[in-house]
Amino acid sequence: MSERTRAIRMGMVGGGRDAFIGGVHRMAAALDGSMTLVAGALSSTPEKAIASGGDLGLDEDRCYGTWEDMLAGELARSEDDRIEVVVIVTPNHVHFPVAKASLEAGFHVVCDKPMVCTAAEADALVMAKETSGCVFAVTYNYTGYPMVKQMRSLVRSGAIGSVRKVMVEYLQGWLATPLEQTGHKQAAWRNDPAKAGVGGAMGDIGSHAENLVSYVTGLGISGVTADVTTHVPDRVLDDDVSVLLTFDNGATGILTASQICPGSRNGLRLRVWGETGGVDWQQEMPNQLLQTSPDGPDIVHRTADLGLCDAATEASRLPGGHSEGFIEAFANIYRSVADAIHAGHDDGGGFDYPDVHDGARGVRFIERVVGQGNS
Amino acid sequence: MSERTRAIRMGMVGGGRDAFIGGVHRMAAALDGSMTLVAGALSSTPEKAIASGGDLGLDEDRCYGTWEDMLAGELARSEDDRIEVVVIVTPNHVHFPVAKASLEAGFHVVCDKPMVCTAAEADALVMAKETSGCVFAVTYNYTGYPMVKQMRSLVRSGAIGSVRKVMVEYLQGWLATPLEQTGHKQAAWRNDPAKAGVGGAMGDIGSHAENLVSYVTGLGISGVTADVTTHVPDRVLDDDVSVLLTFDNGATGILTASQICPGSRNGLRLRVWGETGGVDWQQEMPNQLLQTSPDGPDIVHRTADLGLCDAATEASRLPGGHSEGFIEAFANIYRSVADAIHAGHDDGGGFDYPDVHDGARGVRFIERVVGQGNS
Amino acid sequence: MSERTRAIRMGMVGGGRDAFIGGVHRMAAALDGSMTLVAGALSSTPEKAIASGGDLGLDEDRCYGTWEDMLAGELARSEDDRIEVVVIVTPNHVHFPVAKASLEAGFHVVCDKPMVCTAAEADALVMAKETSGCVFAVTYNYTGYPMVKQMRSLVRSGAIGSVRKVMVEYLQGWLATPLEQTGHKQAAWRNDPAKAGVGGAMGDIGSHAENLVSYVTGLGISGVTADVTTHVPDRVLDDDVSVLLTFDNGATGILTASQICPGSRNGLRLRVWGETGGVDWQQEMPNQLLQTSPDGPDIVHRTADLGLCDAATEASRLPGGHSEGFIEAFANIYRSVADAIHAGHDDGGGFDYPDVHDGARGVRFIERVVGQGNS
Amino acid sequence: MSERTRAIRMGMVGGGRDAFIGGVHRMAAALDGSMTLVAGALSSTPEKAIASGGDLGLDEDRCYGTWEDMLAGELARSEDDRIEVVVIVTPNHVHFPVAKASLEAGFHVVCDKPMVCTAAEADALVMAKETSGCVFAVTYNYTGYPMVKQMRSLVRSGAIGSVRKVMVEYLQGWLATPLEQTGHKQAAWRNDPAKAGVGGAMGDIGSHAENLVSYVTGLGISGVTADVTTHVPDRVLDDDVSVLLTFDNGATGILTASQICPGSRNGLRLRVWGETGGVDWQQEMPNQLLQTSPDGPDIVHRTADLGLCDAATEASRLPGGHSEGFIEAFANIYRSVADAIHAGHDDGGGFDYPDVHDGARGVRFIERVVGQGNS
Repeated sequence: MSERTRAIRMGMVGGGRDAFIGGVHRMAAALDGSMTLVAGALSSTPEKAIASGGDLGLDEDRCYGTWEDMLAGELARSEDDRIEVVVIVTPNHVHFPVAKASLEAGFHVVCDKPMVCTAAEADALVMAKETSGCVFAVTYNYTGYPMVKQMRSLVRSGAIGSVRKVMVEYLQGWLATPLEQTGHKQAAWRNDPAKAGVGGAMGDIGSHAENLVSYVTGLGISGVTADVTTHVPDRVLDDDVSVLLTFDNGATGILTASQICPGSRNGLRLRVWGETGGVDWQQEMPNQLLQTSPDGPDIVHRTADLGLCDAATEASRLPGGHSEGFIEAFANIYRSVADAIHAGHDDGGGFDYPDVHDGARGVRFIERVVGQGNS
Repeated sequence: MSERTRAIRMGMVGGGRDAFIGGVHRMAAALDGSMTLVAGALSSTPEKAIASGGDLGLDEDRCYGTWEDMLAGELARSEDDRIEVVVIVTPNHVHFPVAKASLEAGFHVVCDKPMVCTAAEADALVMAKETSGCVFAVTYNYTGYPMVKQMRSLVRSGAIGSVRKVMVEYLQGWLATPLEQTGHKQAAWRNDPAKAGVGGAMGDIGSHAENLVSYVTGLGISGVTADVTTHVPDRVLDDDVSVLLTFDNGATGILTASQICPGSRNGLRLRVWGETGGVDWQQEMPNQLLQTSPDGPDIVHRTADLGLCDAATEASRLPGGHSEGFIEAFANIYRSVADAIHAGHDDGGGFDYPDVHDGARGVRFIERVVGQGNS
Repeated sequence: MSERTRAIRMGMVGGGRDAFIGGVHRMAAALDGSMTLVAGALSSTPEKAIASGGDLGLDEDRCYGTWEDMLAGELARSEDDRIEVVVIVTPNHVHFPVAKASLEAGFHVVCDKPMVCTAAEADALVMAKETSGCVFAVTYNYTGYPMVKQMRSLVRSGAIGSVRKVMVEYLQGWLATPLEQTGHKQAAWRNDPAKAGVGGAMGDIGSHAENLVSYVTGLGISGVTADVTTHVPDRVLDDDVSVLLTFDNGATGILTASQICPGSRNGLRLRVWGETGGVDWQQEMPNQLLQTSPDGPDIVHRTADLGLCDAATEASRLPGGHSEGFIEAFANIYRSVADAIHAGHDDGGGFDYPDVHDGARGVRFIERVVGQGNS
Repeated sequence: MSERTRAIRMGMVGGGRDAFIGGVHRMAAALDGSMTLVAGALSSTPEKAIASGGDLGLDEDRCYGTWEDMLAGELARSEDDRIEVVVIVTPNHVHFPVAKASLEAGFHVVCDKPMVCTAAEADALVMAKETSGCVFAVTYNYTGYPMVKQMRSLVRSGAIGSVRKVMVEYLQGWLATPLEQTGHKQAAWRNDPAKAGVGGAMGDIGSHAENLVSYVTGLGISGVTADVTTHVPDRVLDDDVSVLLTFDNGATGILTASQICPGSRNGLRLRVWGETGGVDWQQEMPNQLLQTSPDGPDIVHRTADLGLCDAATEASRLPGGHSEGFIEAFANIYRSVADAIHAGHDDGGGFDYPDVHDGARGVRFIERVVGQGNS
């Protein structure tokens, strides 16, 4: 629980007035003082971008109207003053140009998910990242929970035997009505293929589900058979997806992502069974992890218990029974990214955050599922 | 909670020493005194059949060596003494001949699930049942729970709006190892196609899942895309099945049935979402039913609450908070079958148990899934 | 799970039309065929008593108008035909005379709780029981649950170390209004000191709580400091009791029993902590038992898991995940009493049901608490 | 969810190396940027105090060796540069002198609980606070949870009728062994009457329980009957307390606080029943609130649901299903204190944090219970 001393200077693209996830990134950065916001191009509307910077107390000359201005303006500052990392929290279609330009300008990048809109963009970004030598993270934030790290450790260490069956679900209800037709900004861009990419629910939350499976099991997905559905009339992108999965070790699985389940708030759950046991984690009760064995009893691991794996222990800030939530998990990603930036690289060193390869694999998975589902 | 006065006389086929489900049927019949066991052909081995009858205190002349003997012996008794109903709790392949012969002999039938092994047998049995005028029930026993009845009532009455998404899962772990190769009788016949039919996990528990969906939603399944897998080496039948479902009203769904999930005991869960809400029931916590709506709060119905539907209220024997379990639910099937037998017919009258048509649909569903999965 | 062959013949006092607990006793006896009802004096109103016997299908000459008639009438029958056990399910004040006379007539007795109304009656009954050589059980039925037996085994075997703290609560809400003033029979006698004895909530449910603590821990209660309250206007007996407990080994504890908690259905929960761990059982989720240790993880035992103690294993009728409820637990008491009657005695032999000494201790506890609370 | 622009400058007393709660205060302040740490006297050992300031990146000249130095040093700075608030996170016995001196120097104060060690100190502090005109908060942080605010709103608005019964428990297990004899700093001062005051578990966590009851119900406690026990050999202060409560409206209650329950992590739970319903909140699952009514169904409110009271809504930072935890609740206290400081007063204006009067009542309650329990 040591507090790192120097906060990384960050510039944010997106995340101004009316935005949602930008504020989460700021709280996640602030919680541990991992990063501090010093500049921003916080909206695609220049006036709003600048006003939003004022809302957040940024210096006037670092409230930029466009991200291009921000990159240029910051590059013009002295190295020990300019931003070190660009945080991208825009609608999806803006991720690629900002990320690529930021890397090319020598800035580290934290990019929201899905990383980009197409596999071609993903490939280009992987190359740009490698060329740059910068740190690059994609905020698949659910991997930041201590109990997800414990789950990973149990699965990877063989505690449940060779994996046979995976069930992952991510259920929400907020798009059960045509919210995008009512002026709701978050809903609108998520259902506009020009901004969201090919996936609706699949891109927005199915992508998290895929990442979680990969993080925990390490298995590759060799086969997908998908049912990609749009239930709400006049909606363009999918709002309900189910996928039969085959893994490269022969395991079977199901992934479902849906945003038309009224009363489901943020129902991400992953279950994995191996030859000799199982593990079960639910995001809405994030501080417990169920582990099962053939004959019982069940075991319930809880955040901050002694005997957890190192990664789970380090990801916790409080004694047991003091609930650690979504922002804390998100902050773990930020803390790890800041560590990598302090180190000057993200190779080796055990930095624990989703990287450009996770991001690229996620984009490809969206394309596989939606393409397959539509054929 | 009135107690009916006269118990129906039943003869049982199967259910002797080493059997499992026969004892459940007897407890379910005894709980309310709905039926009383007076005769039996309790094993396919005549000596064991007769000895098993002795174990249960049957009169010596009603401990039969074979089911054919039982039918003949009972027909030879006076009408007010002979059995009225034949309860079939054998491995699956015996269901058809016993059921058909029983109906033809004028006996009512309670048959375990799946009803028969092939669609052809199912058709023949539907015809035999209709010709006979007898009562015929298939013990898809999970429909007997009060909260399942409440769930049905909510869905059918429009409390969640038009159904859009269905998720049903039935997970067990007892076949995660090749138990059938160790002399375990229950495992052995369930994995022998000559005795179980075409389905393994699909026939044994997937069939329950399909029935539960049908009972609650009333929707027909128009499309299935299945992944039918056998994980355990040298096993013949499936032990892990997942199916993408399309319903005739456009709803989508997933059904998964697996017996290779270590630590899953009897994990049957059904979730249904409509346009305006959702319902969620889990068999291992059977006395509660979660109902959700778009903006919260959640509602939790509990067995014996006031304000439940009539079917749920009548299916409960105790005040709230007095846990009612598996046997009680099973006994509700028996009570309803006994009511029908007392009435002399099963048409109209609101008898609430799975009938020959449910049984036939279930058999066809197994064939559709397994056939499709293997192609 | 072997089924005993011969059902004990029972005669019931109380439990006719409008009664509640009599039906539970009959279902508990019927579930395993432990006992069979052959005679009854089912109401304090002779006409109703006789009519109630007809409802249950008793032979006309064994539908008695009074319990005195039943004892006399049955004694007049041949030994292999007469009842063997008298089951007493009347309001409390009738327990003593019926139980004493039954024992004196040589009948075994199953008596509902609290056993009698005063310590003096309890003493007299202990003596009558010992003189008689008959089997005597008090239906503190919650001890019949498999997970309660497992809890007992863990505590008694030292799995949590020497006991330090006990918390037991039994919360209901059905008497939050003056139901006894509305003609509700169950409420009326429970709040009439002439029929219920000195305790209201304390006698009706607090008594169960005390018994559960004793069964699980084996500790004696050396000190009580009580708050005995009546919240509902014009009610005579207590409806809300809390007691600070001191145990003879120095452990501390709290017992609370209340019937004025709206929405609490049948909220019996026992928690026990020792020097090295804790156990936690809740009646409304009876098939799980939480076991804790200083540093985690938590352990959840479930009914029918392998590795449970023998008593828990024998108390279960089904595979894991098949919910076993209130009636099944009650039936375990009946099965054990029947075993003792078959054995002809209740000494040694490991019969596992609450006996006359448990009943007497319970009555004294009610007096201690209510007397102390009122002083 | 608007972010306030200017962070209040805070100086911290205590909270250096090896401390626990200081780091929580810093995270709580940082989460929303409510306050920013600019100065500190972070340990009672001057060298350690200064080194700890360095750890946290404080300017060298604001790393003070003693709190007296900090007050003097900061007063010497210009008004727009000096600290505005003193945050006290020391062992209990230091609270009073620092708080009093801080107020007298014109600084606002955030003080950890219990506020001070004696009622006399509490009285003096109330007076000092009133004289100063400064803002004063005591971090009874559990009142910061959205669902606690919803609970309060329901109780205060009559949703459960007039309160009749209150059950509050705060159970931990970390002091089940004599940890204070092993060099464990947190345990050591908590069990030293010279540093902790008269209460052990009662002061440390029982005090939270009392505050929570007061916050939610608004009822005064008119009577206490306490059992104050020390289970661990050679321990000086209590480690297990149970109290029978009487409230000024006639309601009854139980409070228990114990730190010798192995496996209990941070088990704070409050249940309140009124004439027509009940509410139940558990700190370890802080984002849900159970509401019950006489006949069911149960209602489960969840953080960020629509239709919650304003205070609950404002206390939430994320959409539903995104778990908000202990730090977020703590941060709500900070946010409200910062609002009051910005406003320049804490009268009216609906600032929602525990104040000096809450702190004083808490200290008196500890004295009443421990004094009564020891007599």
